[in-house]
Amino acid sequence: MATEKCFAKGSPSPGPVPKDRLRLYSMRFCPFAQRTRLVLDAKGIKHDTINIHLKEKPDWFLEKNPLGLVPALETPAGEVIYESPITCEYLDEAYPEKKLLPSSPYGKAQQRMMLEHFSKVIPYFYKIPTARRNGEDVSGQEAELKEKFAKLNEHLEKKKTKFFEGDTITMIDYMMWPFFERTEVLELKHCLDHTPELKKWTEHMLEDPAVKNTMYSMDTYKAFYKSVAEGKPDYDYGL
Amino acid sequence: MATEKCFAKGSPSPGPVPKDRLRLYSMRFCPFAQRTRLVLDAKGIKHDTINIHLKEKPDWFLEKNPLGLVPALETPAGEVIYESPITCEYLDEAYPEKKLLPSSPYGKAQQRMMLEHFSKVIPYFYKIPTARRNGEDVSGQEAELKEKFAKLNEHLEKKKTKFFEGDTITMIDYMMWPFFERTEVLELKHCLDHTPELKKWTEHMLEDPAVKNTMYSMDTYKAFYKSVAEGKPDYDYGL
Repeated sequence: MATEKCFAKGSPSPGPVPKDRLRLYSMRFCPFAQRTRLVLDAKGIKHDTINIHLKEKPDWFLEKNPLGLVPALETPAGEVIYESPITCEYLDEAYPEKKLLPSSPYGKAQQRMMLEHFSKVIPYFYKIPTARRNGEDVSGQEAELKEKFAKLNEHLEKKKTKFFEGDTITMIDYMMWPFFERTEVLELKHCLDHTPELKKWTEHMLEDPAVKNTMYSMDTYKAFYKSVAEGKPDYDYGL
Repeated sequence: MATEKCFAKGSPSPGPVPKDRLRLYSMRFCPFAQRTRLVLDAKGIKHDTINIHLKEKPDWFLEKNPLGLVPALETPAGEVIYESPITCEYLDEAYPEKKLLPSSPYGKAQQRMMLEHFSKVIPYFYKIPTARRNGEDVSGQEAELKEKFAKLNEHLEKKKTKFFEGDTITMIDYMMWPFFERTEVLELKHCLDHTPELKKWTEHMLEDPAVKNTMYSMDTYKAFYKSVAEGKPDYDYGL
């Protein structure tokens, strides 16, 4: 699409997906949608992007995708795929060049187990900033998050590799990255102070072209998260 | 293993996994472990089973599998795989004869999305019986469960097939089945009263050999769930 501006309730439908590409329904600052954006970019998959106003979703979007979730993919055949890990595995299977998942069944199972563990880390990225905004004491939750980061650090220490599953980037790195990209704006960066290997991993990630292509500046994040805190998310900030 | 009796804290370790088979760590009445048992049986995969006392887990089990979850698989190479959907996808990939997942990326994504929806149905199988035991009014929760069953019924109505993804049984049927097997003992069977297609599906499922091989009688379930309600689960009931 020519515009990155979000489609809200009442916006005209973008019409069918052109034959030669995929369509991604996204929201520019959503960490889950960024997982799919990272995979699309890393694999060089031709696609257009329709950003959705998550507070006022267009009816035509809810018809395609009754849960109204982003990320969602739509194919020219009208097939709709949602849930970030499902979209990413779909992309890796449907576009087999530059595989991001290992080919062995156990290798894949390992990445899925790690993702399952990581799904228990994600809530802290939401709970801590909210609690802090409400003036609550977050030291307990921060201690829990630090413990989870220590486990990830331990994994990297044992593996002695640049990325989570080797010296090249794989799917699990992209699945975790969007949350780490937001540690600074969410004021969680100090939780990485005692996890040097994890910190080094974030530095390696910042050198990856797909990460560079999908990330926003600190100033942009600050402005967006300020609008979220005020209850009026500005999905089009900076456009 | 010669014994089906569960291994509790202090039990001797069963030793390494023999070269020609897999090992399943299970609990005889666990619906999540039954998913893996169904897949192992349907695909005819040679394995032994070690049942675990879930309230008093052996130390050697926690060393292999720090979360202490069942089901878990262990290979002769000492690879450990846990989380029921991960174990089942692993089995389908590692043992490609008699595939239970479709080969197309979109077909696989559809099954994963359906499983994701179903994961929101599962909590009702725990919440309703617990609330009922506590003398609470469960009519609201039952109405919600009926609505979820109605969605599944609608899916089958649209597909016009015996099983969820066609006229032959596939992975998604096995992933959902263990919970339906327990509707009677959990006193949730009446929630199926207005979902005739879903009811017919349960009848087709009961004819499947893997379902027959992994299920327990109503009397056994009643006795087991009674022991659970009394706070002393009898994992070895009937042995």
